[in-house]
Amino acid sequence: MGFILRNAVIPTAGGYETTDVRIEGERIAAIGKGLASVGPDGVELDAHNKLLLPGFVNAHTHSSELWQRGIIPPYPLELWLAQLHEYSPPDPEKIYLSALATAVETLLSGGTTVVDHLILIPGQELATLEAAVRAYREVGIRAFIGPLLQDQALPACLPGGEGEAPAYPLSTAEVLALVEEAVEKYHRPEEGISLMVAPTGIQLCSDKLFEGCAELSQKYDLPRHAHLLETRAQQMLAQEKYGCSAVKHLQQIGYLDNRTSLAHCVWLTDADIEILARTGSTVVHNPLSNLRLGSGIAPILKYRRAGVNVAFGCDGAASNDSQDLLEAIKIGTILHNITDPDYRHWIAPRESIEMASRGGAIGLGLGEELGSLEVGKQADLVLYDLTQLSLLPRTDPIGLLVLGRPTQVVHSVWVRGKRVVADGKVTTVDVAKLRQELFEHSFWDPWRRSQQVAQLEARYRRVMGLPE
Amino acid sequence: MGFILRNAVIPTAGGYETTDVRIEGERIAAIGKGLASVGPDGVELDAHNKLLLPGFVNAHTHSSELWQRGIIPPYPLELWLAQLHEYSPPDPEKIYLSALATAVETLLSGGTTVVDHLILIPGQELATLEAAVRAYREVGIRAFIGPLLQDQALPACLPGGEGEAPAYPLSTAEVLALVEEAVEKYHRPEEGISLMVAPTGIQLCSDKLFEGCAELSQKYDLPRHAHLLETRAQQMLAQEKYGCSAVKHLQQIGYLDNRTSLAHCVWLTDADIEILARTGSTVVHNPLSNLRLGSGIAPILKYRRAGVNVAFGCDGAASNDSQDLLEAIKIGTILHNITDPDYRHWIAPRESIEMASRGGAIGLGLGEELGSLEVGKQADLVLYDLTQLSLLPRTDPIGLLVLGRPTQVVHSVWVRGKRVVADGKVTTVDVAKLRQELFEHSFWDPWRRSQQVAQLEARYRRVMGLPE
Repeated sequence: MGFILRNAVIPTAGGYETTDVRIEGERIAAIGKGLASVGPDGVELDAHNKLLLPGFVNAHTHSSELWQRGIIPPYPLELWLAQLHEYSPPDPEKIYLSALATAVETLLSGGTTVVDHLILIPGQELATLEAAVRAYREVGIRAFIGPLLQDQALPACLPGGEGEAPAYPLSTAEVLALVEEAVEKYHRPEEGISLMVAPTGIQLCSDKLFEGCAELSQKYDLPRHAHLLETRAQQMLAQEKYGCSAVKHLQQIGYLDNRTSLAHCVWLTDADIEILARTGSTVVHNPLSNLRLGSGIAPILKYRRAGVNVAFGCDGAASNDSQDLLEAIKIGTILHNITDPDYRHWIAPRESIEMASRGGAIGLGLGEELGSLEVGKQADLVLYDLTQLSLLPRTDPIGLLVLGRPTQVVHSVWVRGKRVVADGKVTTVDVAKLRQELFEHSFWDPWRRSQQVAQLEARYRRVMGLPE
Repeated sequence: MGFILRNAVIPTAGGYETTDVRIEGERIAAIGKGLASVGPDGVELDAHNKLLLPGFVNAHTHSSELWQRGIIPPYPLELWLAQLHEYSPPDPEKIYLSALATAVETLLSGGTTVVDHLILIPGQELATLEAAVRAYREVGIRAFIGPLLQDQALPACLPGGEGEAPAYPLSTAEVLALVEEAVEKYHRPEEGISLMVAPTGIQLCSDKLFEGCAELSQKYDLPRHAHLLETRAQQMLAQEKYGCSAVKHLQQIGYLDNRTSLAHCVWLTDADIEILARTGSTVVHNPLSNLRLGSGIAPILKYRRAGVNVAFGCDGAASNDSQDLLEAIKIGTILHNITDPDYRHWIAPRESIEMASRGGAIGLGLGEELGSLEVGKQADLVLYDLTQLSLLPRTDPIGLLVLGRPTQVVHSVWVRGKRVVADGKVTTVDVAKLRQELFEHSFWDPWRRSQQVAQLEARYRRVMGLPE
C-alpha cells in the first residue's frame, strides 16, 4: 500500500511544475501529473502550494554536544575542546535525549539523514551507542553513527609537543575491537541505522587506528568518516608528524576512497584538493563551526571547480550552536562570495540544494539510492509550506528557501516512505516531553573560565604565535 | 496604569537573576525582587523561565525589497542593483504590506525598532512614505524612516565612467524640498515615528545633497543615515570623485556626527576608522548582505577596538534574504573570529546583545532613552521563552540566544510600554491575513537573467578586472 502526494511543486530544469508523486513502500514509484489513486482507499495528501524536495543530509554532527550548546566562550577549536572535555560526560539517558533533539531539529530544517560522529562515554561505549540508536529508531530519521575514535590523549592535538602525550586509556586494538562489536550489534542499514568507521582525525589517531578502520570498512561495507585539517594548528601538526600534508598521508595509508567523508577541510593546499578529487572523497562543509571557532573559510569554490563532492553539516551543537541545517546551507552558500570576486563562480541556491541532498548521499556511498526526486529512489522527502510568512511573497521558492531565513516551513517529512513529520510536528516522539526532560536535566550557568583551558592556554598561545 | 513582569530572568554582571520589572506608561518604573502590585486590579505577567532583554534595533533595512527576496541571482551589489531596478516599483499598497511584514519579522526576532531606508516610488514619493508610516503605526513598532535619496542616475555608481551619467529626474533642490515636506507631515518622534535624512551614499549623491540633508538634520533634529563604502567599486569611485577616501570627504562636508549611522562600512582604512571614532559616527553592520553580495567582511573588531559604536542591521530583504535580526546578530558575531587569530578580541554574546540594543539606540541619538534595562528608560522590551526547544537545554541563555538558532522564542514584546506580541503572536495586526495578501500579490518566478544586468555587466567586469 502506498500513497500519493497531489499537486506538489517540484523543481524542473527551467523552473517549477506542479505534479503528483506516488510512494510505494520505501521508494518513489511514480512522478507525473494526474497519477491514478492507489486503490479505492488509497491515501492522498494535498501538496498544493508546497515544495517537494529530497531530504538533506546533516553530514557531520556530534549529538551529545547539545548539552553544552551556548555555554563555551569564543575560543579556537583546541581551547574549546579543552573546555568541552571539562564537562562530565553525559550518561546514556542524556545521550538518548540529545540524539532525539538533534534528530528533531534536523527533521524540522529539511534533513532526513543525520551523520552522528558520536562521542563515547568512557567505559560505557556500547551503552552510548545503544542510547543513540534507540533515539534514532524512535524518531525514524535515517542515521549513520560513527563512534568517535582516538588512541591518543588530548594534549597530543597541539603542535610543538614536548615529550610524550599522556597515554590514552584504550589501546588501538581495544578501540578497533569495540568498533567491530558495535557493528555486529547495531549496524542495520536495511532498517535505516548504519555504523561508520570514524577516527576523530590525524590529531589524536595513530596510523594503525586509521588502517584498522579502513579494514573494518572493507570487511563490513561501512562508510568512512573523520575530521580533516579543521585548524591551522592541525596543519602545523601534520607537518610535524608526517613531514607532509595530512591529506597526502591519509591517502598513503589507504584511508581515502569514494565512501570517505571528511569534515571541515579548511586548511588544504591545491595539491591536497587534487588528491580528494582523485580518490572521490567527500568534503563535509560545516561553515558555522568554522566561523564560531575561528577555523577559517573552507575553500569550497575550489573544491567544486576541482570536482570534489561537497555536503553540508551542522557540526556538534556546542560549536555552532544549533542543529538547523537550513542555516548551515545558507551560510555555507553565501560565505564563499567573499572569497572570489568573480560572481560566476558563486554557488546558486539550486546547487546548494543539490549539495545538501545528493552531495550528502554520495558521501555515504548512497548516490544511487538517495538524494534526488527520481522514480526508484528511497522516499526520503520533505514538503515545505510555501504559504508561511518566511517563504512569502512568492518569488523563487528555492532561492528563498536557501537565502532567506525559513522558520516553521517544514510541513511534512518522510524517511524510507514513512511519515515522521506532519503539519509541522514530529509525529513519532513527544517533543513537549522532550523539552521538559531537557529542561529538567540542565541548569542555567553563565559562561566561565575553565581549568583545562587555563592549563592549555599558555602553550596554545606560544605555539600559535599569539602575545602572552 | 502600569503592569508588572513577575520573576523575569535578567542578566547581571556575574550571571543572571530572577526579578520583577514594573512598567508605567512608556517607561520602566522599577526593577527589583518582590515589587508591590500596581493597584488592586494591577496587571501582572508571569515571566518565569523567560529572559527579559531590551529590544534590538534593526538598524538598516529597505522594507520594499521584501517583494524581491529570494529572486535575484548571486551578483555583486552593482549588478544586483541593476536587476532590482528592473522590477516595477511596488504601488503604495505593496509598500504598506512589505513594511508590515518587515515589522512583524523584526518583532519576532527580538527587534523593537526598525530603521527603514525606504525606496521611494518615483512620482509617488509622499504616498510611499504614507504607506510605510501607516504600517508601522498599525504594528506599533518604533520606526525611523529615511527616504532613500539620490540626485544622480544609476550608471554613476560605477567607477571608470565615460562622460556624463543620464540625468536624474529630480533636481537636488526638489529632492530636499520633498524631504522637508515629508518631515512636516510624518515626523512624530513622540509617537514612535521619526524621519531621518538618508542620502543613499556617495555613489549616487552630490555634495549639495549631503549638505542640504545635514542642514535639515540640524533644523528638525533628525538622525542622519547613508550607505558607506559597501563595495570595492565604491572605494575606487570615491578616489575618482574626490581624490580622497569617502569618509574623509563626508567629514569635510560636515555629514558625520554622533547621530550619523552608516550602513556597511566594509572598505575603510585605519585613517577612516579614526575619523568615525572622532566624529562619534555609528557603523551599522549588515553581515548577511555583505556575504550575499560578496562585498566583504567589515572590519568590526577594528571598529570596536577604536571605540566606534556598532549596531546590527538585516539590510533589505532582497540582499539577505530575510529580516531575522537574531540571524544577523549571530553571523555578525561569529564571522569576525576568522579575521583575527587572537580569540581575546572576538565578540562575546553579551557584547553582541549590547551592540544590537544600546549600540542601535546610540546610532539614532537615543542612547539616553533606549537600549538597556534601566529605570527611567523607554519600555521597549522583549521576553524570550527559555523553554523552547531551540533554547534548551538550559546552559547560558544569552550564549544560546546569540550563538544558537532560536526559533519561536520571542514570547512577548512591548514598544513604548505597549504590548505588541503576546504568546509568540503579533497582537496588533492579522498575520494570517498579511500572508494571504503577500501570496495574492505575487507569483512564483524562477531566477532569470535581467536586461539591465546584461547592459551593465561588460562594463562592470572590465572596471573590476574580471575576465570577459
